Amino acid sequence: MWIVERKNYIQDENYVYETLFTLANGTFSLRGVEEFSNYKMPGTYVAGIYDKHDAQVTELVNLPDPLGINIYIDGEPLVLDRCTIKSYSRLLDMKNGVLNSATVLELKSGKMIQLDSQRFVSRSSLNRFGVIYKFTPLNFSGKIFVESFIDNSTYNGKLDPANKIQHYTVLNAGEMIPGLFSLVKTHDKGHLIAIRTALKGYGSNGENVLKFRKYRLIGDNPSEIYTIFVKEGETYTIEKYGTVFTSRHSPDPLRDADAGMAAYFALGVEQELKKHVEIVNQVWERMDVQIEGDDIAQLGIRFNLFHLYQCASDDPTVSIGARGLHGEGYKGHVFWDTEIFMFPFFLYTLPEYAKNLLLYRYNTLPGARKNAHQNGFNGAQFPWESADDGTEVTPKWGEDYLGNPVRIWTGDEEYHINADIAVALVHYHIVTGDDEFMRDYGAEMLFEIGRFWASRVEYNERYDRYEINRVIGPDEFHEHVNNNVYTNYLAKWNLLKSQEYYYWLKERYPDKFEALKYHLGLTDEEVESWKHVAEKIYIPKKEGELLIEQFEGYFQLEEHEITEWNENGLPKWPKTVDLTRLGETKLIKQPDVVMLMLVLPEEFTKDEMKVNYEYYEKRTMHKSSLSPSMYSIMGLKVGDTHNAYRYFLKTVLVDLEDNQGNTNNGFHAASAGGAWQCIVNGFGGMTLEKSGELNFEPWLPEHWKSLSFRINFRGKPLKVTMTKERLCIETEAEVPVKIKGNRVNLQRGENCFEILG
Amino acid sequence: MWIVERKNYIQDENYVYETLFTLANGTFSLRGVEEFSNYKMPGTYVAGIYDKHDAQVTELVNLPDPLGINIYIDGEPLVLDRCTIKSYSRLLDMKNGVLNSATVLELKSGKMIQLDSQRFVSRSSLNRFGVIYKFTPLNFSGKIFVESFIDNSTYNGKLDPANKIQHYTVLNAGEMIPGLFSLVKTHDKGHLIAIRTALKGYGSNGENVLKFRKYRLIGDNPSEIYTIFVKEGETYTIEKYGTVFTSRHSPDPLRDADAGMAAYFALGVEQELKKHVEIVNQVWERMDVQIEGDDIAQLGIRFNLFHLYQCASDDPTVSIGARGLHGEGYKGHVFWDTEIFMFPFFLYTLPEYAKNLLLYRYNTLPGARKNAHQNGFNGAQFPWESADDGTEVTPKWGEDYLGNPVRIWTGDEEYHINADIAVALVHYHIVTGDDEFMRDYGAEMLFEIGRFWASRVEYNERYDRYEINRVIGPDEFHEHVNNNVYTNYLAKWNLLKSQEYYYWLKERYPDKFEALKYHLGLTDEEVESWKHVAEKIYIPKKEGELLIEQFEGYFQLEEHEITEWNENGLPKWPKTVDLTRLGETKLIKQPDVVMLMLVLPEEFTKDEMKVNYEYYEKRTMHKSSLSPSMYSIMGLKVGDTHNAYRYFLKTVLVDLEDNQGNTNNGFHAASAGGAWQCIVNGFGGMTLEKSGELNFEPWLPEHWKSLSFRINFRGKPLKVTMTKERLCIETEAEVPVKIKGNRVNLQRGENCFEILG
Repeated sequence: MWIVERKNYIQDENYVYETLFTLANGTFSLRGVEEFSNYKMPGTYVAGIYDKHDAQVTELVNLPDPLGINIYIDGEPLVLDRCTIKSYSRLLDMKNGVLNSATVLELKSGKMIQLDSQRFVSRSSLNRFGVIYKFTPLNFSGKIFVESFIDNSTYNGKLDPANKIQHYTVLNAGEMIPGLFSLVKTHDKGHLIAIRTALKGYGSNGENVLKFRKYRLIGDNPSEIYTIFVKEGETYTIEKYGTVFTSRHSPDPLRDADAGMAAYFALGVEQELKKHVEIVNQVWERMDVQIEGDDIAQLGIRFNLFHLYQCASDDPTVSIGARGLHGEGYKGHVFWDTEIFMFPFFLYTLPEYAKNLLLYRYNTLPGARKNAHQNGFNGAQFPWESADDGTEVTPKWGEDYLGNPVRIWTGDEEYHINADIAVALVHYHIVTGDDEFMRDYGAEMLFEIGRFWASRVEYNERYDRYEINRVIGPDEFHEHVNNNVYTNYLAKWNLLKSQEYYYWLKERYPDKFEALKYHLGLTDEEVESWKHVAEKIYIPKKEGELLIEQFEGYFQLEEHEITEWNENGLPKWPKTVDLTRLGETKLIKQPDVVMLMLVLPEEFTKDEMKVNYEYYEKRTMHKSSLSPSMYSIMGLKVGDTHNAYRYFLKTVLVDLEDNQGNTNNGFHAASAGGAWQCIVNGFGGMTLEKSGELNFEPWLPEHWKSLSFRINFRGKPLKVTMTKERLCIETEAEVPVKIKGNRVNLQRGENCFEILG
Repeated sequence: MWIVERKNYIQDENYVYETLFTLANGTFSLRGVEEFSNYKMPGTYVAGIYDKHDAQVTELVNLPDPLGINIYIDGEPLVLDRCTIKSYSRLLDMKNGVLNSATVLELKSGKMIQLDSQRFVSRSSLNRFGVIYKFTPLNFSGKIFVESFIDNSTYNGKLDPANKIQHYTVLNAGEMIPGLFSLVKTHDKGHLIAIRTALKGYGSNGENVLKFRKYRLIGDNPSEIYTIFVKEGETYTIEKYGTVFTSRHSPDPLRDADAGMAAYFALGVEQELKKHVEIVNQVWERMDVQIEGDDIAQLGIRFNLFHLYQCASDDPTVSIGARGLHGEGYKGHVFWDTEIFMFPFFLYTLPEYAKNLLLYRYNTLPGARKNAHQNGFNGAQFPWESADDGTEVTPKWGEDYLGNPVRIWTGDEEYHINADIAVALVHYHIVTGDDEFMRDYGAEMLFEIGRFWASRVEYNERYDRYEINRVIGPDEFHEHVNNNVYTNYLAKWNLLKSQEYYYWLKERYPDKFEALKYHLGLTDEEVESWKHVAEKIYIPKKEGELLIEQFEGYFQLEEHEITEWNENGLPKWPKTVDLTRLGETKLIKQPDVVMLMLVLPEEFTKDEMKVNYEYYEKRTMHKSSLSPSMYSIMGLKVGDTHNAYRYFLKTVLVDLEDNQGNTNNGFHAASAGGAWQCIVNGFGGMTLEKSGELNFEPWLPEHWKSLSFRINFRGKPLKVTMTKERLCIETEAEVPVKIKGNRVNLQRGENCFEILG
């Protein structure tokens, strides 16, 4: 279950497969375009390269496509859509991080050609990619042409034509030895992006077959075309080398791209591929999840983990957008999706990347401070949608069907992102024990976010309480609400944590503490005021009642019962609802109170969870791909296993099934993180307790023979394997954990526990 | 029979239909691309805009495509190849010079749209074109986008990918009010080409429907995109305006293109179309051929005349390439095809264009002088292949199958082009009586060509004769031959005509004569020497024998009998022939001796024609599309009506049937001229006698009820109509002609003659 295979070429499925087959190394990505199709949406994205220019908001830039290749037979380019496809297979080998294809094509003339390829984006050298083509003329000999080119006419917005835009200009494009180059520049920040490509080609005797090179510039696209004299039955190999450098990391990207190409060309693409595969194999040892008895779930979870890993960057100045590096959905913006949905996966398997995700927030603190300042608050206000510098990039206006402007409020009101980041910070510290991180980066962020909340709350004299009004919680159906419990509860928690870490830093790292205190102009008095505010933040929860009102007045809203579900098991709109007045109903888009209980499970009792789960689940429309997985986990926590597997499966197959219908514009990265949480926190029943210990209370679906996953806890790798009867944990060092609430001290080697009943 | 219709959309036929549906006004052309297809080969050619740059030879430049248009429904561009085509019709209305289309398309979503269009390239304002789209959403309402763009990424060589090249760079591209512009520059001569486009759009109430315009530059392509809110069943009209100006005729083409656009936009595309149609209708009154009883021949001949007319320019600095303005075959070069095959049509129907074709040669005299000088000859040597300046542009080298270089000799040895031009000049003078032309241009050319021949001939002392050795005649299978009769005979004739016109000019226009004599450094002595040379030019014709040897030694070559013919009735290679040694056989590519007798029919007897026709026709492989029509005419002259109709039909349908398999790269303009000659000189039996009189000896195919054609003789329009029994000529003035050799004086009105037997 390592292979995602496309078995048939159906043109309409191309864009979706391009997303599924995207290759990335955290630094840059290439959408999985079928090079030999004439229906494609190329995407070359470099993490951190954003541009606004004439677009509505800053967006991840679609850069030149370096994959351009043509094979001309009888003067016509080989195009899948114009051939009879005798056999077709394109498959993503996730184990190795390679995209393979094998096709046999028959041209109109009756000529048949076998054409196979391997493509990878290297994890070994983060600026390299490679493609190895092998082709065999099956029933003809003759002269063919092979052309390689860089397409400098790509643009953003192919799926949104009214907003299409090219975010770069071509500074220079031409030939270098060997091959081609392109140097482009983004409009606003003037990022330079240099691309180099080159070909090697040989026959079965290893001798160069590329002859009579012609170089041409067609429009802005540099192209090189070679003649190959092919013999029936012989196999020819064409290696395509590519390097991508940008001014984000290189003072002279073109020079570096060229030097990089020279070294790469000398090394050979096969060697690079080998090094890449080794790294990907090793990473699987740390993050793999194995499910016995459920092939589709097994494939699905690996698919999600593979693509999450592909987005993870070694660069602490970039994060992961809502659609990964896989497409232009949500403009490449970073949401709470990262900290709340994806982050736990990295935290528990590949914590070095979790750290980078937090460092991205640290590196965008200046932008967050600017947001706070501009909005009249103190400290740092992280943006609801974040791009390269931490300033708010949520669009202010959208369009309704008639083209009328509609105000988008999330960028103004969805404050909870700040607490979401704080939660990730604190959990990172607990799970990794990385004090240096907290000292150098985490504490400063917590202080600045604390300050923000303290200035954002509004004192209500009548009730002697702090309120947070005019907000949007995770459930975005309801705007301008007062005292959303998710927001208020986390703000409160956040302020207390900020205060706690203030004293932690003072005690543990007094020098750093002093420096930071003066640097930020922070006083004990200010920090004490946080505590005061926190204690008086209003939580709309009635004394003695378990059910929590999502926000003030929610319980007074119209009730609309959900009575019909679609073929995916997701609710249909009740017929009684006016979709333009959703805010007046109790229907919610996705968990909000329940979400709070998943984000901070240690803060709530099982009874509270159960009551709120039962109440809100009935009213949830699941209009976010993030919703089902969360209800799956919470269901398992409160003993409702009824929907757990079904919701999990929808989540884990969001992209493979394209069950949201928008996989074409990118990978559902948060959903993938949610799928991992379903496995580990849901079926694996793993919870991080208030004590800082892990507790496991597993439950497996009927047909699962076993489930196994790897986690890393405080630097110690654990392999957790469970059947319905037993739970075993392999460890290399002693670790205290809880099994169904009972504390045990794991010994080196395998530790097994009966868990029947 | 005015309509060429494409009834089915079959992708593989697109390139051929693009040629068939090319619209041109002699100044510029637009290949008949199906805008809504994703398989197309756009071609925008401006007569006289050539460039070499990195190409092997100078070629007609494929300029930016101004027809770019997209209609987006649900975010996807409407593409024929991705729709179910519920109905399709695309038709060339030759009567009016308009390309119409009417389609009903069903999208994958089930949405249906009717989409009709009219396109024209104006004969009224030679810089304008227009497209009128009408579309109706048949079963949906909603928001769609309409995008117009100029494609600045076009290039030459789409059918020859190893030689593809972009012959221009984009100087500027952007928006203007209203619409878009593009300014490009050719590499070598720096021709500037400015294109402007703009849209108007309205619904049934006439009100503007184009809303929310967005302008974008994607790569080098300027684009404007509008939103239209459409209602089911309503019809919307989008008018596309376009102007094209170049620095060949405009000091500031962009300013002129913009001013032209302003005037055009104010006038309205419907008005422009009306003026265009009036002109085309009027031209048909002068050139039409009517065939009763043979619809396909009727359609075919009109198709040929229509496209010949489309190539005819008001500009005396351009001529007509072998493939018209319709494609890139033969690189847009001008061959003898123009003077020998196309010219007679223009001479006898639209003599103002015939004059321009000759003026093109006059205007390229400096280049022709340069050729002569560089080759060591005197006077002017017109190039075998001519582009913009009269210098030789025949490629020197080609490639064989293995990529080995092969020397091409036609540019060195196919001298007869010079005499071909002289023949056209002299015939022009006889048929039009345009003395001023001969005085101001024709005489000078005749003198310079005469000088060339006098210096090119080689004196053979042994036989006391002048020879012309190492030449290629019209039959290009035989290179480096000595004393090719076509060449020698015409050289001789040419020298005598040059001498004759010297004295003609002296007598008629003594002032001009004096001026020219001193300007050219010409003396009576030199001119008298031409006569001397002419008399001694060796014609390889044995005393008392009617059969003429094509060149010295031809009769000694290997005989290979043609015994098989293909489905088109054209000969197959005899199995005994080695194709690499064709020069050693008697097989010929196309008529050579017979061609001579068609070029100068007044010089040969019927018996001579018959003997040579019978001998050479058997040995002709017809490997030129120019060949069958010539045998058709000669067959009729000598009483062999057997092949006449079949050869005619192949000729007249060369493009409509694509029976040479290469209509994709342009219109067979010479073949079209040959088809007209078949009609007029073949079936109509019209000959210009040595006396300067027209003689008619008609013969009609069995199933033809009548044939009628228009000619213009010495400024007098004649309408000639014939059945098998009668020949009638309508004239507005008295004209002496011959009917089957009998002189008659036509009276005003209709003159009919019995021609039975």
